[in-house]
Amino acid sequence: MDSKPIAVFDSGLGGLTVVRALRRHLPHESLIYFGDTARVPYGIKSSETVVAFAEQDCNFLLRFNPKLVIAACNTVSALALEELTPKVPVPLVGVVGPGASEAVRQAGGRSIAVLATEATVASQAYIRAIHHLAPRTPVTQQRCPSLVSLIEEGRTSSDKILLMILDEYLDGVRQLDPAVVLLGCTHYPLVAEAVGKLMPLARIVDSADATARVVRELLANRDALSASVEPGRLRCYVSDNPQRFREVGGSFLGEPIREVTWITPEQFFHEQSVFKPVRELEDAIARGSDRPEAVHISSGR
Amino acid sequence: MDSKPIAVFDSGLGGLTVVRALRRHLPHESLIYFGDTARVPYGIKSSETVVAFAEQDCNFLLRFNPKLVIAACNTVSALALEELTPKVPVPLVGVVGPGASEAVRQAGGRSIAVLATEATVASQAYIRAIHHLAPRTPVTQQRCPSLVSLIEEGRTSSDKILLMILDEYLDGVRQLDPAVVLLGCTHYPLVAEAVGKLMPLARIVDSADATARVVRELLANRDALSASVEPGRLRCYVSDNPQRFREVGGSFLGEPIREVTWITPEQFFHEQSVFKPVRELEDAIARGSDRPEAVHISSGR
Repeated sequence: MDSKPIAVFDSGLGGLTVVRALRRHLPHESLIYFGDTARVPYGIKSSETVVAFAEQDCNFLLRFNPKLVIAACNTVSALALEELTPKVPVPLVGVVGPGASEAVRQAGGRSIAVLATEATVASQAYIRAIHHLAPRTPVTQQRCPSLVSLIEEGRTSSDKILLMILDEYLDGVRQLDPAVVLLGCTHYPLVAEAVGKLMPLARIVDSADATARVVRELLANRDALSASVEPGRLRCYVSDNPQRFREVGGSFLGEPIREVTWITPEQFFHEQSVFKPVRELEDAIARGSDRPEAVHISSGR
Repeated sequence: MDSKPIAVFDSGLGGLTVVRALRRHLPHESLIYFGDTARVPYGIKSSETVVAFAEQDCNFLLRFNPKLVIAACNTVSALALEELTPKVPVPLVGVVGPGASEAVRQAGGRSIAVLATEATVASQAYIRAIHHLAPRTPVTQQRCPSLVSLIEEGRTSSDKILLMILDEYLDGVRQLDPAVVLLGCTHYPLVAEAVGKLMPLARIVDSADATARVVRELLANRDALSASVEPGRLRCYVSDNPQRFREVGGSFLGEPIREVTWITPEQFFHEQSVFKPVRELEDAIARGSDRPEAVHISSGR
């Protein structure tokens, strides 16, 4: 039994779909989420920059002394996981491995299409992960550059424009007649229904649920599940714009976001050391509350 | 006469539309461009963060000892210009003032609609700038959140999806029957033709051309135009992904981008001081060339 929190990070708010799955599969775990909303998105950036940003994100979260860290961002999982793993002193789980594994399972030897950001597609990480598990599986990839923006605008699976652009993106994978469409970006589960409408014969797999199940198994095997019988607490930290995170993030989390703290650049960007205890961070936030750039917002319950 | 360069910065590559106008109106001026592609976009971020980022962008450019700095980013011009102006030791020109002024001139007392990013719309900077010049002008604003992404995807004024979403955005301003539609984001001039098709009775004004004319006048009044008769050199610096900047940026500049240098975080993000001479920076770039994160790419001519 281990009451320490699980730490989750993403470039912005997409990782909240992973948090949603974690809260379903592991309702008693305490969760700390960090969204790098000052530098979002990562999906159009270079691997060097994504690695550097992800390392800062991890360092920040390690201050909370978590039992496990999840890179709930496909771009980070695709580009930075190998570099980060030896630097993080607790298990680090990405979303590409679990997603690929679930896609392979559901495809049963038939073909898989991966929808993802520019950077994830360019990295070919999903292709490698799938072929590592099932070398002869036919795989195709399609980048969907504007899908994140359209989803954050509030467009849903019934939106005409979203369906049109998705239909155009899917043209790139139809030739393969995929048995599985793997949603390789944490935003895409919000429009899974639209993908299903346009590809009625394919199974839709998203990494969020697969990742939550991998994490549950990993913690169970290590006897590191929480012993709590209370619902686990979720605390969110962002590097910018907590208001927008709350407003847009609710539909990703599937419930209102209660606690969001804005981490100032002094508290985050220039951070080098790892594993400082949480108390120190919370003190820093408390001290920062009289400075205009440090804002703590939290709705009453 | 002043042979020092004009410095231009933007959150990414949108500011190249301003560079394009500068090269048309001031062909003999030497130009230094900085695009903060590691942290692009600014349009969904808070004013505190935009001010902090813009200050770092300015500090970097001041190392080149420019005679003038242009904030070629509507979001920066709207959110950060007032805070930056006293900190920059040379004239600092934004795009909101010149754009508003040109819109007022062309509207001749009739109504103006402003299309812009989330952050620019929320700042109400265009409304203030227009009412400062013409207090009784009816003004309406519309945010166009996905337009930047769709334009960077390569969609043009003839693209069906782009026309549909633009038509939807324009629904927000049609009630006012605007005489002028002001394109309040440096990306939007690339789809000016589409705006014109959908609003055939309105005049389309973009800030890029107006800004270039303001700069020419300002330099002429100070006798600070370049005495050169050669075409001015354009050097571009980016905080990430020079390859993508070259590939996507060409259509914004209207010509191929020749010189792009990738500035590492060490050379840029942590930079505090201002006004270091250009030699020192170029030495730093030269020194950095053996490090993997410092890449200089330049096509031969």
